Amino acid sequence: MGLEMAPVEAERSPEQPELQIYPLCRYYFGARDARPCAGETAADRALRLKANFAARGLRTRGGPTYTQPVSQDTGIALGHRDNFVLGPPLLRTCVHGVLLVELSGHPHVLLLQVRNSSFLLPGGRLRPAEQDVQGLKRKLSSKLAAADPNGDHHWQIGECIGMWWRSEFEARPVPYPPPSTRAPKECVKLFLVRLPMARQFVVPRNLKLLAVPLSQIHDNAQVYGPIISGIPNLLSKFSFNVVRN
Amino acid sequence: MGLEMAPVEAERSPEQPELQIYPLCRYYFGARDARPCAGETAADRALRLKANFAARGLRTRGGPTYTQPVSQDTGIALGHRDNFVLGPPLLRTCVHGVLLVELSGHPHVLLLQVRNSSFLLPGGRLRPAEQDVQGLKRKLSSKLAAADPNGDHHWQIGECIGMWWRSEFEARPVPYPPPSTRAPKECVKLFLVRLPMARQFVVPRNLKLLAVPLSQIHDNAQVYGPIISGIPNLLSKFSFNVVRN
Repeated sequence: MGLEMAPVEAERSPEQPELQIYPLCRYYFGARDARPCAGETAADRALRLKANFAARGLRTRGGPTYTQPVSQDTGIALGHRDNFVLGPPLLRTCVHGVLLVELSGHPHVLLLQVRNSSFLLPGGRLRPAEQDVQGLKRKLSSKLAAADPNGDHHWQIGECIGMWWRSEFEARPVPYPPPSTRAPKECVKLFLVRLPMARQFVVPRNLKLLAVPLSQIHDNAQVYGPIISGIPNLLSKFSFNVVRN
Repeated sequence: MGLEMAPVEAERSPEQPELQIYPLCRYYFGARDARPCAGETAADRALRLKANFAARGLRTRGGPTYTQPVSQDTGIALGHRDNFVLGPPLLRTCVHGVLLVELSGHPHVLLLQVRNSSFLLPGGRLRPAEQDVQGLKRKLSSKLAAADPNGDHHWQIGECIGMWWRSEFEARPVPYPPPSTRAPKECVKLFLVRLPMARQFVVPRNLKLLAVPLSQIHDNAQVYGPIISGIPNLLSKFSFNVVRN
């Protein structure tokens, strides 16, 4: 239109939460040595999880880990009624962080890329009896901070913005407990991570850290997978406030 | 597996919000006379909105409505710098309600269907200077309750769970302010509507009210459109609590 106009924004309802984001140039990005066993394929992953599941059983919080017998005929785990009734929820749980920065006036999500192909959110699997927030802090430190086992990297973990379930380890995740099964194998939780005005990211050399615009991620499950491509939708209730000074 | 097991559910984090839903059989569904001018096509809609935009200008909250001059050559509205700087946000705003019921142990969303084809969320356009919550209550009453202009139908409007924008009236909506334009034409806000344990829905005869499972809506933009098909993702952070008694 050739005319310079003040930006026209949606009105912020009183209850609409605000999210402060800072320009990408506020952050420093460095590299460190790669961690062993990083960068497995999807097929490797499914095999490893099935082997763990059969050998070590499922995780329980604050209780013992039960070994689940596997049917000789079908390879399907046979539920022991007592185990399920006794224990707290039995489920592989992963926690991931959604970290946002601003570039060209548009919010970008920080994603890790493995071998120039698949994209990951920083995060990973909880240890037995580990709390969501504690586990996510540990995973963010291992993927995004200098290697310092005693370092407190001051991650500010915000609310859980979404959850996805897998009925089987190879299954496509869905954003609700799968109605076809009463025992989903995996749950993936996404947490908002509020970044400070400035910080240092130190990433293992076998991974690349990229800032990807919401507009590129949205509706692009083919490249980013269903969980990441749904993030712009999960963030849409927030009013982004870009802080430049 | 042949064994009866206690359901295995994801652990609810302390901060994970709970959402009570009630079985579909708790609700009564009736019909009433159709409203005039309901059920236009997408092309009709775009034409109507463009005509309104050119003739009556954009909505401002609590202020005057400016008429925006339209270029004779292109038909594109010419922004008046002073209008934009002067006024509060200028944008067509629609509000929609997400109403949930339980059926077969799985959450279902209440959708309106027009002429056996397109699906809609109950809701509609805000009037000039109308607040989101007030406008949504008015729209829910007009689409889902007995025709009673003075009736207070006790809608309990919860939080805004998502927002979508259109850069042009025919454009595909996106869940972030479109980076390509500083003046999006439309904003669509989705609010959670908490249903009581029982209530009556009275729907105009030209619309059908359907309860559609999350698993059918998810990732099915071809049938339900991008906004509705993203609802399961928006709801995934909630822990559903089905209340039967």
